[in-house]
Amino acid sequence: MNRFLHNHLFRSVLSLNRALSTWNFPSNRRGFSDLPESWKSMTGLVRCPANDVPLSPISFLERTAKAYRDTTSIVYGSLSFTWEETYNRCLKLASAMTQLGISSGQVVATLAPNVPAMYELHFAVPMAGAVLCTLNSRHDSSMVSVLLRHSEAKIIFVDHQLFEVACEAIQLLEQGDSEPPKLVLILDSEHGSSPASLSSNVYEYESLIASGSCEFEVRRPKSEWDPISINYTSGTTSMPKGVVYSHRGAYLNSLATVLLGGMGSMPVYLWTCPMFHCNGWCLTWGIAAQGGTNICLRKVSPKAIFETIALHNATHMAAAPTVLNMIVNSPVSDRRLLPNKVDVLTGGSPPPPQVLAEMEEMGFRICHLYGLTETYGPGTYCTWKPMWDDLPSDEKSRIRARQGVHHVGLQEVDVRDPETMASVPTDGKTMGEIMFRGNTVMSGYFKNQKATEEAFKGGWFHSGDAAVKHPDHYIEVKDRLKDVIISGGENISTVEVETVLFSHPSVLEAAVVARPDDHWGETPCAFVVLKEGCNTVTAQQLIDYCRDRLPHYMAPRSIVFQDLPKTSTGKVQKFILRERAKAMGSLS
Amino acid sequence: MNRFLHNHLFRSVLSLNRALSTWNFPSNRRGFSDLPESWKSMTGLVRCPANDVPLSPISFLERTAKAYRDTTSIVYGSLSFTWEETYNRCLKLASAMTQLGISSGQVVATLAPNVPAMYELHFAVPMAGAVLCTLNSRHDSSMVSVLLRHSEAKIIFVDHQLFEVACEAIQLLEQGDSEPPKLVLILDSEHGSSPASLSSNVYEYESLIASGSCEFEVRRPKSEWDPISINYTSGTTSMPKGVVYSHRGAYLNSLATVLLGGMGSMPVYLWTCPMFHCNGWCLTWGIAAQGGTNICLRKVSPKAIFETIALHNATHMAAAPTVLNMIVNSPVSDRRLLPNKVDVLTGGSPPPPQVLAEMEEMGFRICHLYGLTETYGPGTYCTWKPMWDDLPSDEKSRIRARQGVHHVGLQEVDVRDPETMASVPTDGKTMGEIMFRGNTVMSGYFKNQKATEEAFKGGWFHSGDAAVKHPDHYIEVKDRLKDVIISGGENISTVEVETVLFSHPSVLEAAVVARPDDHWGETPCAFVVLKEGCNTVTAQQLIDYCRDRLPHYMAPRSIVFQDLPKTSTGKVQKFILRERAKAMGSLS
Repeated sequence: MNRFLHNHLFRSVLSLNRALSTWNFPSNRRGFSDLPESWKSMTGLVRCPANDVPLSPISFLERTAKAYRDTTSIVYGSLSFTWEETYNRCLKLASAMTQLGISSGQVVATLAPNVPAMYELHFAVPMAGAVLCTLNSRHDSSMVSVLLRHSEAKIIFVDHQLFEVACEAIQLLEQGDSEPPKLVLILDSEHGSSPASLSSNVYEYESLIASGSCEFEVRRPKSEWDPISINYTSGTTSMPKGVVYSHRGAYLNSLATVLLGGMGSMPVYLWTCPMFHCNGWCLTWGIAAQGGTNICLRKVSPKAIFETIALHNATHMAAAPTVLNMIVNSPVSDRRLLPNKVDVLTGGSPPPPQVLAEMEEMGFRICHLYGLTETYGPGTYCTWKPMWDDLPSDEKSRIRARQGVHHVGLQEVDVRDPETMASVPTDGKTMGEIMFRGNTVMSGYFKNQKATEEAFKGGWFHSGDAAVKHPDHYIEVKDRLKDVIISGGENISTVEVETVLFSHPSVLEAAVVARPDDHWGETPCAFVVLKEGCNTVTAQQLIDYCRDRLPHYMAPRSIVFQDLPKTSTGKVQKFILRERAKAMGSLS
Repeated sequence: MNRFLHNHLFRSVLSLNRALSTWNFPSNRRGFSDLPESWKSMTGLVRCPANDVPLSPISFLERTAKAYRDTTSIVYGSLSFTWEETYNRCLKLASAMTQLGISSGQVVATLAPNVPAMYELHFAVPMAGAVLCTLNSRHDSSMVSVLLRHSEAKIIFVDHQLFEVACEAIQLLEQGDSEPPKLVLILDSEHGSSPASLSSNVYEYESLIASGSCEFEVRRPKSEWDPISINYTSGTTSMPKGVVYSHRGAYLNSLATVLLGGMGSMPVYLWTCPMFHCNGWCLTWGIAAQGGTNICLRKVSPKAIFETIALHNATHMAAAPTVLNMIVNSPVSDRRLLPNKVDVLTGGSPPPPQVLAEMEEMGFRICHLYGLTETYGPGTYCTWKPMWDDLPSDEKSRIRARQGVHHVGLQEVDVRDPETMASVPTDGKTMGEIMFRGNTVMSGYFKNQKATEEAFKGGWFHSGDAAVKHPDHYIEVKDRLKDVIISGGENISTVEVETVLFSHPSVLEAAVVARPDDHWGETPCAFVVLKEGCNTVTAQQLIDYCRDRLPHYMAPRSIVFQDLPKTSTGKVQKFILRERAKAMGSLS
């Protein structure tokens, strides 16, 4: 109790003591330069370490390590951690990286599926002051090599299944002039991998963590504008571009995504969306903010999804529409009854209303969102309103398929004429380009000032997506600008044609592209995958089906039954289909 | 369809067009000065209007006016508005204020209870570029006058019931040298007020709005550090201090409070906490962020609370523990069955566990939070964990009475020795002072650099509250530092003694203060209000009751049955009680 005796003194001499005390703000006390002119002559306001801290997702983990100390952070097979353990492992990992020579602002790459190490690296890399570059785990060694060279990564963390790809990529690098990155191998006791004899420049993940210290002093960003990650675009048509995220943007988009997904305290989040993709739509950081549990899954299949939801009472997941399509078309034997409502964030491409309706019938609750790598993933979402609850199911799904309104982290999303920059009317008809403005828009394309400036022309980020604005201000994507078909001077939204094809009971997947035409300029050509056991449907039947439901000029003039080429994130690669359609020549 | 024809051109000449286009970033394109050293030589990153917008709660209203256009924003008696209407009214109000001569950075004051105008002014004033100063509606004219002079308010918006107070305050001002503020009278058709003949310097609220324009261009903050509001402390012991909030802090604390309160989309929020107090704990802005409905209430009583919850299916409310005490002690005839779970945010003073338990039994779900005016209201909350669900009710209430952990908007809350700044151990016993660090700590005390510097000594905001840290890192307030009683060298937490008194079935309210003592230095003296019909309880019985439940030295040595003096926000004014106890002289 002696401890508090001095408070007695403290209390009585408080004013004197404080009045006489040396002003002891740290030396980086800043002035009032950015307070408004009218306040310049006024006193009393300061920016100092007590009230000015760079926003960073690192603070989510630090807070949660206290607030949710004993609760489960990560589950992977029989492996699980608490938030306190995760925090300590990240500290040790950050410490170990600095021992490997990583300095602030340098890039650390990863090549791995959704294993626990991927989650830990989302905190450990920024805590080491470094920049995280999560490479697509389906890239081949030559692409990995190109991106390692471009990013100048100093370390690459590699899942054991991708060890050869990474080694080959590094060998390709070594023919160049830059120093090759150190390689850290992530083994997987759950999948029976065991350490081989490792060469001198190769480290093992758990041993590396063991070599680090919990006493590591986090290398915080000096400014919240400091880069936290680089996300290379999928590069469907060109060289991937390195989209740079800041600590500030990551902090804000994480909270906005948590809010739009209706995540309360301690969600149980099933990782079906790749963490390498937009940092898992910022939910790598967001789940930590809410003290949730991350259920990691190496390989996504409908069976694994149903089993994992049942086993862990998962409350949330995120998945591209292709994954939802896999779920609704999965054999009944793979399915399980859901133990509770599961909120599913979906986005990445316009989801067919039929798929949304079937998901809802199975007990999932869909939150449809929209964004691009350049907007940290989620940028808008189809905010649901109670007044729509009693609409017929197909009407609900039609509404739910709209991309909606911008989330709370952005300033503005608009649909504008890309040439005049004029906002299109809210008539649900006039198409324009979707444009974004706000703090959750990328800092730019790494080492590509020209592309950055093009993307930000006129003070807006240009999405390249064509859309309309409905009377209630909800936007609806009609197409990629470059995918719009122009036939006889009329614009055709390929998404609208695909939606009709999807509604046919025999169609599993469909993608529509322009086929050159001597008479019309272009005509719609559909590539279709039929459901199992539906092989008797003919091209003409599908064309007729579309003609019954669309203006004549919008119906496909040709149908090709063929598997669809896709990116690793599940997007159909239309530029390949366009090449194929072009090779087919003119119909007329 | 011609519109889209140019997209065809656009598409084909895209690269050329963009390559040749003049770089047309607005002139305020900024450089890379705050990117890290290691990135200086790298290219591709920019800060421009596409990705850098000052954080401000104004964006909540702008977004919600689109996303929740037709849904109800405000309800007050038979009056109600949609979000689109609220947005337009705020635009017009902001426009009208600038016509009255308000310029950026000037102060606009209010003197009103929780009527719709108060809500609208939380957006309209910042939209006019001005700073909102919500005066406590229970201040007398001389205090209002002092604060008008200190804040240099140019306009004051006044509820019709407080018109005389405001007029007197302005008359007092006019004896000085500063120009008196313009007065805008808020009438209330719900409560039968009608416009009297107004003098030349007095405007009427609805007429003022009618004179404004929806086309008003919002005067946005140039920096997110610009002040958005001044909140004067209650000034229990000294001259009120003007706590300045920034747009950045308000944005972040609004979202953090929405998250800690578990508010999903479209909450129905009952305004029992005064909006003039910490801007309604930032929920004035927060409810807009979530597209919720604001139920305004001129006067708070248990009967009105129950009726309003039943009428509007309110989902959330916030109230000081004194209001909760009123609710649990209200006559059964005033109560109604709750139509749904109602989440109650409570804070402002440590809530007695008994009151929390009784509230839970009535169907309320309590979220206990803690903070000060200097932390924008809520700074910590007692994050609830499922593992506590099955504990006995009294144990749960004991846990729920702790102040918990910091919210997601803050960087750190700690309990430290106020002299050495050393963090106290997490032993649940050692007391220290609660200190805050983060972006939701005030910018400073307006025109009081000395007080600001004292409050931020050592880079932390000093709360003046004494607390312990439990092994799970949850903090628990034991007292105001200056309220701790030191008796024979032992520290006594007055909150602990009050908690025991509260657990006595006859006690309605209790406050314990130090009484000077020749032998012990100080002894605990309790001021007690008994429940109706419990007048037979004696002082000795209460003393014995405490001695059975506390160490002997902690039990009150004297009991006074007397009403408790309170501030308008419901806090007991212990300095008055201390004066009374002092006047009683020494017991020994």
